[in-house]
Amino acid sequence: MSKRAILLIHCPDQKGLVAKITDFLFKLGGNITYLDQYVDVEGARFFMRVEWELQGFKLYPDAIGPIFGKELGEPLNLTWRLYFSDQRPKVAIFCSKEPHCLDDILARKSSGEWELEIPLILSNHRLLEPTAKRFGIEFAYVPVLPEKKEEAEKAQLALLKKHQIDFIVLARYMQIISETFIEQYPNKIINIHHSFLPAFAGAKPYHAAFERGVKLIGATSHYVTADLDSGPIIEQSTTPVTHHDRIEDLIRKGRDQEKLVLAKAIWLHLNRKILVFQNRTVVFV
Amino acid sequence: MSKRAILLIHCPDQKGLVAKITDFLFKLGGNITYLDQYVDVEGARFFMRVEWELQGFKLYPDAIGPIFGKELGEPLNLTWRLYFSDQRPKVAIFCSKEPHCLDDILARKSSGEWELEIPLILSNHRLLEPTAKRFGIEFAYVPVLPEKKEEAEKAQLALLKKHQIDFIVLARYMQIISETFIEQYPNKIINIHHSFLPAFAGAKPYHAAFERGVKLIGATSHYVTADLDSGPIIEQSTTPVTHHDRIEDLIRKGRDQEKLVLAKAIWLHLNRKILVFQNRTVVFV
Amino acid sequence: MSKRAILLIHCPDQKGLVAKITDFLFKLGGNITYLDQYVDVEGARFFMRVEWELQGFKLYPDAIGPIFGKELGEPLNLTWRLYFSDQRPKVAIFCSKEPHCLDDILARKSSGEWELEIPLILSNHRLLEPTAKRFGIEFAYVPVLPEKKEEAEKAQLALLKKHQIDFIVLARYMQIISETFIEQYPNKIINIHHSFLPAFAGAKPYHAAFERGVKLIGATSHYVTADLDSGPIIEQSTTPVTHHDRIEDLIRKGRDQEKLVLAKAIWLHLNRKILVFQNRTVVFV
Amino acid sequence: MSKRAILLIHCPDQKGLVAKITDFLFKLGGNITYLDQYVDVEGARFFMRVEWELQGFKLYPDAIGPIFGKELGEPLNLTWRLYFSDQRPKVAIFCSKEPHCLDDILARKSSGEWELEIPLILSNHRLLEPTAKRFGIEFAYVPVLPEKKEEAEKAQLALLKKHQIDFIVLARYMQIISETFIEQYPNKIINIHHSFLPAFAGAKPYHAAFERGVKLIGATSHYVTADLDSGPIIEQSTTPVTHHDRIEDLIRKGRDQEKLVLAKAIWLHLNRKILVFQNRTVVFV
Repeated sequence: MSKRAILLIHCPDQKGLVAKITDFLFKLGGNITYLDQYVDVEGARFFMRVEWELQGFKLYPDAIGPIFGKELGEPLNLTWRLYFSDQRPKVAIFCSKEPHCLDDILARKSSGEWELEIPLILSNHRLLEPTAKRFGIEFAYVPVLPEKKEEAEKAQLALLKKHQIDFIVLARYMQIISETFIEQYPNKIINIHHSFLPAFAGAKPYHAAFERGVKLIGATSHYVTADLDSGPIIEQSTTPVTHHDRIEDLIRKGRDQEKLVLAKAIWLHLNRKILVFQNRTVVFV
Repeated sequence: MSKRAILLIHCPDQKGLVAKITDFLFKLGGNITYLDQYVDVEGARFFMRVEWELQGFKLYPDAIGPIFGKELGEPLNLTWRLYFSDQRPKVAIFCSKEPHCLDDILARKSSGEWELEIPLILSNHRLLEPTAKRFGIEFAYVPVLPEKKEEAEKAQLALLKKHQIDFIVLARYMQIISETFIEQYPNKIINIHHSFLPAFAGAKPYHAAFERGVKLIGATSHYVTADLDSGPIIEQSTTPVTHHDRIEDLIRKGRDQEKLVLAKAIWLHLNRKILVFQNRTVVFV
Repeated sequence: MSKRAILLIHCPDQKGLVAKITDFLFKLGGNITYLDQYVDVEGARFFMRVEWELQGFKLYPDAIGPIFGKELGEPLNLTWRLYFSDQRPKVAIFCSKEPHCLDDILARKSSGEWELEIPLILSNHRLLEPTAKRFGIEFAYVPVLPEKKEEAEKAQLALLKKHQIDFIVLARYMQIISETFIEQYPNKIINIHHSFLPAFAGAKPYHAAFERGVKLIGATSHYVTADLDSGPIIEQSTTPVTHHDRIEDLIRKGRDQEKLVLAKAIWLHLNRKILVFQNRTVVFV
Repeated sequence: MSKRAILLIHCPDQKGLVAKITDFLFKLGGNITYLDQYVDVEGARFFMRVEWELQGFKLYPDAIGPIFGKELGEPLNLTWRLYFSDQRPKVAIFCSKEPHCLDDILARKSSGEWELEIPLILSNHRLLEPTAKRFGIEFAYVPVLPEKKEEAEKAQLALLKKHQIDFIVLARYMQIISETFIEQYPNKIINIHHSFLPAFAGAKPYHAAFERGVKLIGATSHYVTADLDSGPIIEQSTTPVTHHDRIEDLIRKGRDQEKLVLAKAIWLHLNRKILVFQNRTVVFV
C-alpha cells in the first residue's frame, strides 16, 4: 500500500464538519481511503477518522499539519492529531512473571504482523529475560521494592526516554504505576486486566470470579489512568466456564483471552483507530 | 421417550460413590440414560445427576425414594432429590412493564418447547395484562406500594399457594423481594439481571455500563437469595457493543440476551440439571 | 426523535464524493446525525449511508429526491434510494409449521420494538393460524402442491399486492420460491436458513450437521435470490454443540439462533442499514 | 498433583457398565478424580473417561492394563486405552510458511503450559527455520516436489520413527498427506483448517469466504483422514467479519482463530480427552 496520512479529530458537534474537512482534502487532491465519523448526540461531540493517500496530494507531509491547523483546526476548535502510515512506533513492554502476553506480542512483531519497534522489555523479575534474549531485545531488570518505588520509576522513565518510547504495553505487569509516571504517557499506556471490568477490579480476579461462581470469565484492555483499573476500555472479551473449572482452569482459559484482547488493543492503537474522550473510547473499525 | 427417573445428589466426597449408586440401579434393572458426576476436589464435595428408564425397573416409582433413602441416602449421608420426567412443574411468572421475557416464555410454553404449566402471571402493573389474556392465563395485578410491601407479598404468597406453584420466574420484575418470601421458595425463584454480574448489580445497569464505556454488555440468570443480585448464577452471556451504542441501543441489544439467558435457566431448572451448593451452581449438560 | 431522511448510495468510486454529498446537505441546512461510508478499494465501489434531520432542512421531503437526483445523482452516476424515518413498511410473514420465528416477530411488533405493519401472515399449513388470530392478523392459508405451485404463487402475489406489501419475511417457510416471484421483490425477501451458510445448504441442515460431527451450529439470514440459499448474506451466528447433542438438541439450540439472526436482519432492513452489490451486503452499524 | 491413571473406553451399550468399571477401581482402592460417561442412545454406544490416583491403588501401573483387560476389557467387549498422567508425548510439528500456529505452540511448550516434548519441526520450506533454532529444536527441511512426494514422505516417516513421535501437528502445513502416511498415525495427526468446515474445504478458504460474503469466518481442528478436510472434528470457532474486511483482514483475523482452535485440540489430545468413533469425536470436558 502507498503511504497514507491519518487524521484523528474530535470537537464540539457543529453543522458541516464532514463537508469542510473532506472538502479541504478533496481540493488538495487527496484520495480518501477511509472515512468514519461518529456523533455523540447527547454529548454533542463529533469524532472522525480520515485516511488518504499522499500520492498526488498537493501538500508535503510536513506542511499538512500546520496548514490543516490554520485552515480548520483553529477556526473549528478541533482537537486533532496527524499520523503517517509509515511511522513505526517504538514500544516498551513491561512484564513480570507471566510469559503468555509477552510471547504473543514478540511472535506478532517477529512475524511481521505488526509494524512497530520493540527496543525495550522492562521487568521487576528476571524470569522472562531468556525470552527477551531469544528475540535479541534489551531486557532491563528494574526491581520495584515498596519503599523504593519512586526510585524504580525514575530508572524506568530514564530507560523509556533513552529509547524514545512512543507507547507502553503492560503485558501482565503486576505493579501499580504512579500518577506522576502515568501523566507522562497519557493514553499511551495499555494494560490488560484479567477480568471483564468493572467486575473483579484489583488483585486476583480469577480467584474472585471462582468464588462468585460466574459462568463467564473475561479480559479487558484499557488505557492506564491514575484511577486503578478504571481507565478508558479499548477491548473486552469473555469465554464460558463451568463448575468443572477450578481456579487453575480459569487462569489457563483466561490466558488466551488476555493475549488476544491485549493484542487487539495494541493493533488498534498502532493503526490509530482509537480516540479517547471523557474516559471512554471511540474505536473505529 | 419413555418415562424416566432423575436423581440429583450431593454429599461429602468418599470412595466408591459412583460404584455404589450405579450398582444400586443396575441390580434393580435400571437402564441408565444419563450419568454425570463432578467432584469438587478442593471442597471435597461430590455431585451427581443420574437418569434411568422406569420401564423394566424393579421398583414402583413411589417406592424408589424410600428405598434409595434407606439403602444409600442415609448410610452415605447424601443430600438427594428424586424427580420423574413426566412431572410438569407449575410456574408463576412475575413481571412488571417490560414484555420481552414474558413474551418469550409464553411463546415457548405455547409451542410445546417446554413441559410446564403457567397458571399465573403476577404483576405490579396492568400493562402486560393483554399478553396474559392472549394466552388465556390468569393475570393477578398486585400493586406494590413501598409502605404496604408486606401486605402485597402476603397476597402474592396466597396466590402462589392457591395455584400450587412449584417455582417462580422473575421476568424483569423490578421489585426487591423480602427475605421472608424468598425463604419459602429456596432455589426456586429464578431472576434475570440485565448485566454480567457482579458488574453493575442493582438498578439501571445499562446506564452504568454506558457510563463506564464497556465494550460488552451481558445478562445473568440466578436464583434469588436474600442478598440482592448475589444468588447462585445459573447462566450468563455477553454481546459486543461499540461507541455507536447509546443507552437505548444497550437496552435494545440487551433484551435478546436477557430473554435467552432467562430461557436457558428455566430450561435447565425444568430438566433438573442444576444443583446448588454454597452459593454456586453445578449445571449438568 | 425528530423526523429524519436517509440516503443509501452506491456508485463507482471517485474523488470528492463525501465532500460533494455532505456539502449538498450542509448548504441546505441539514444536521447530519449519521454518516458512514465504505470504499471497496479493489472493486473501486463507493457505498454511503447518511441520515439527517428534516427540521430546519430547506427542502420539503417530496422535493429532496428530485433535487438530489438532478444535482448529484445523475452527474455522479449514483445508485441511490431515499427513505424517511417515519415510514412504516408493510411486511408479510410466510411461515410453515415451525412457530418460533413467527412468535418472536409478532412479540417484537406487538411490544413496539419495531416500527412496521404486519397486515398478512401466509402459510402452506393451517397449524399457526391460532397465532395469527391471537394478534388479530389476517392469516392466509395457501396450500402449495407440487403440481400447482404456479397457481399458489399467483394467489400469494395477489394477496401481497392487495396489502401493498413492502417486503417479505420467510420465517421458516420451507418452500422454494420461483424466480418469477423473486423478481418482483428483489432484495425484499428475507430468509432464515438454519445453518452457517454455505455449509449445509438445502434441506435438513441439522441432520447434516449432526452427521458431520460439527462443534458449532449456525443460522444465516439472507436475501432470497433465484439461486437457492445463495443470496446475499445479512447476518450469521453460531453456537457451540457437543457430542451430547443429538439432532433434537441441535434443533432446539438452533431455534434461538434462527429467531435472533432473522430478527437482526429484519431490524437492519427496517432501519435502511443494508446495501446489496454483487451478491454481497454492506451492513452499516 | 499426584500421578494418575486415565482410561478411555468405548463399547456397545449394555446395562451396568459404569457400575462394573467403577466397582473394579473401587475394590482396588482407586480414588476417582474424574468420571464422565456418554451414551449415544441411537447408536447404542457407550463412551467413558475415568481418571484415578495411583497413590493407594493396589496394582502396579504395569499390571493395570493386563488385569483390566482380562477382567473387564475382554468379557465386556471394550475398546479401551490406558494412559498415565506423567507420560510426556513426543510431538512433531509440520509447518510451511505461516508462523503464527508454530509460534503459539512453541510459546506454550516453552512456558510450561503443556506437558509434551517437541523433538522435531518438519517443513517443506526453510522460512521458519530461525524459529526452530530460537527454541533449540531440530528443524528438518524436507522439500515436497509433486513428482517426488512418495520419497519425501519416506524421509518424513524415517525422521518420525527416529524421534519416536507419538503424534503430529499440522500447523498450517499446506501439503496433502497420503493415505499410506496417515494409516501409520490413525487419529494421531491433528490439522488446523482455516474455515468452519464443512464450508470452504480445500484451498484458499478465506478467498472463498470473502467471495461468498459471509459474516463469520472460522477455524476447525480435526484429525486427518484419507478424505481431505473430512476427518473427525475436534474443535471449531467463528469470529464476526463485516464488509470492511478485505481478504487480507480475513487472513489477519483468522490467524488468532487458527492458533487458538489448534491449541485447544492439542490440549485435549494431550490430556486424553478425545475418543473417536465413526468419524465423530466425543470430547470430555
